[in-house]
This record gives sequence, structure tokens and C-alpha cells, in this order.
Amino acid sequence: MSLTIYGDSMSGNCLKVKWTADKLGLAYDWVEVDVVNGQTRTDAFRTLNPAAQVPTVVLADGRPLAQSNAIIWHLAEGSELISSDAYLRAKTLEWLFWEQYSHEPYIAVRRFQKFYLNTPEADIDPKLRVRGEAALARMETWLAGSPYLVDSRLSLADISLVAYTRVAPEGGFDLAKFPGVAAWVKRVEQDLGLS
Amino acid sequence: MSLTIYGDSMSGNCLKVKWTADKLGLAYDWVEVDVVNGQTRTDAFRTLNPAAQVPTVVLADGRPLAQSNAIIWHLAEGSELISSDAYLRAKTLEWLFWEQYSHEPYIAVRRFQKFYLNTPEADIDPKLRVRGEAALARMETWLAGSPYLVDSRLSLADISLVAYTRVAPEGGFDLAKFPGVAAWVKRVEQDLGLS
Repeated sequence: MSLTIYGDSMSGNCLKVKWTADKLGLAYDWVEVDVVNGQTRTDAFRTLNPAAQVPTVVLADGRPLAQSNAIIWHLAEGSELISSDAYLRAKTLEWLFWEQYSHEPYIAVRRFQKFYLNTPEADIDPKLRVRGEAALARMETWLAGSPYLVDSRLSLADISLVAYTRVAPEGGFDLAKFPGVAAWVKRVEQDLGLS
Repeated sequence: MSLTIYGDSMSGNCLKVKWTADKLGLAYDWVEVDVVNGQTRTDAFRTLNPAAQVPTVVLADGRPLAQSNAIIWHLAEGSELISSDAYLRAKTLEWLFWEQYSHEPYIAVRRFQKFYLNTPEADIDPKLRVRGEAALARMETWLAGSPYLVDSRLSLADISLVAYTRVAPEGGFDLAKFPGVAAWVKRVEQDLGLS
């Protein structure tokens, strides 16, 4: 049995797992799970992941694992996508935790509301734009001095952060205001064979 | 030079770092940073952490690191607080990411609004209670079958999750409704020498 990825193709969190597996050359089965239509809230799915979230993977030995950044860390451990230097490993994790706390809840959520739910601008919480732009500004500052988020080559931090940054315009964020981020998105997309 | 922890003693995210360092017997200097009074938003602090958040640590070699769960992972790497089994390591990370995405933003935020800002109940977003209780319910289900979150002994997952769970009552959450969680809080507090 090989790796099985339960994911929703609209979800950047799920695509992170696919891209990491592809970059590492891992064989896997992709099982499409439609979040909007409640397919994560079935009893069968909750057996795999009680938190009822995608992505969830079932490893080759049959054991389940959840949380996008925990999954990609597990898959990439020992590969060139995670530095072998202890400090750079920690900085990679720092970006992954920052992504889930200070980036995804604003950029991914605004994109979901605007692009998938067609929520009118006036009904979207203004703090999603303010905090999303703050996240992009923080990345812009970093990327002014470095081609990638950790060290000078592609790492899990780039894979994790690019997932929702590349679709930020679908959430109404203008990447032209963040040229360093826009250039980094293109660089990472090319590294991942997405462009 | 030893480890320096920049933290706010009211913040569970900062206390995680202190408890991990204490449990590991690491020497450190604690520098109190008052978040409510803007001490993270100074230029000097932003040099350490552009995200202007505590905890931030400066390692013995002078390099800074942020994000509570990335910091405790870095400090505890190679210790008994992280399993040496690859799958259990991944499950530990799964809990850490879940904590920052599905637990802290509801339980810690409601506690901050209620306990520190004295926000009237009627002005607190109702979803903080709903999602905070969902997080506690998920922990209750797990802890019905296990004394700790990973394996059968204390790990970083327990240290990370106990930080805001133990003060959930300050946010108006009734732990009597989650007896398995309440018993686990006591167990972890005892392990950490907090009770």
C-alpha cells in the first residue's frame, strides 16, 4: 500500500501535501474530498481525523496523519526540503507555524469568502485585508534580501507559504504592491513545475 | 551567553517556552515584555522578530527564533519530550499545529478578551465559545483513551496544549464539562511542577 492523500483540490493546505510528495517523487493515491459539501464531516472521515479537516493522509503502514504542515514535515524529513542545520530547521518550522497563525487565517479565509462563497466585499471582515496585507508585507521585507524563505534554496517553508500566497489575488490582494513576493511566487512555482 | 527568552508572563505561548526550558534544565534569562503596552512594537524588538510577537528567544549563539511551538521543538530536539519514533514525532507536530490553528485562536483569544480586557459577554464573538468548546471536546475524546496526547508519557504536545487549556476557565470555559481534560491538566501541571 502506498501513501493516500485525502484532499480538496481547491485547498492550498491540501496542495502543499501534493506538491511536497511530487517534489520528493513519492507515489501516492489522491482521494478527492469535497469540504464545502460536507465530506469531511462523515463518521468514516472522522475515524481518520477526528478534527474533520483535510488534508489527512494515510501512510503506507495504514496510520493516519493530519495537519498540512505536520504532514509535509514528516514526508520531507531527511530530504533536501528541510535543512540539516539545526537553526535553519528551526527557522523553517518558525515559518510553518507563522503561516498557520498569521497568514492562512487571513489570506486563505478572505479568498474562500470572496472566490468560493461570493461574499460581497462589504460583508467581509475588514481585518482579513489588514492582517493579510501585514503578512504579505512581512514576506516582502524578508524576500528583499533573500530569494527563498530559508537559506538560498527551496524548502518546505516556500512550499507551505506559496500555497495561499499564489492565489491571494483571488482574495482581493494585489501582489503588484509586493513585487518581491510576486517574483518569489514565480520562482517557487517554477521549482515545483506549476508554471 | 545563555538562552534569552523575551516573553509576557500572561501569555501561555510564552510560558510554554519557560516550562520546556525548565523541564530540560536549560539555563536562561527571562526578559519580560509587556504586549498590551506595546513593547513588541518597538523598532528594537522588531529587529529580533519582524512579526513583533512574543515569545521570541535569542539562542546562546546570538541568533533569534520566534513562534512558540518552533522554539520548544528546537529546544527539545533530541530530548525525551519528543519521541524518537518517526510517526510519534509527526503526531506531536500534528498536535502543535492543531493547537495554533484550532485551539489557541478561540480559547486564548476568549480568555484575553474576558480576563484581561474585561470585554462584556455580549460583545464577545459567539464563535469563540463554539470553536473553543469543539477543541476541548476533541481533546476529551482523545484523553478518554490515553493519559497523554502522544504515547503514554509527557511530550511537547502536552506542554503546548496545557498552556491555554489550564486557564480556559478564565475565558469562561467550564472544564467540569470535560473531566478527562481536567484530569490531564492536573497530571501535566504535576509533571511540570506547576501544582
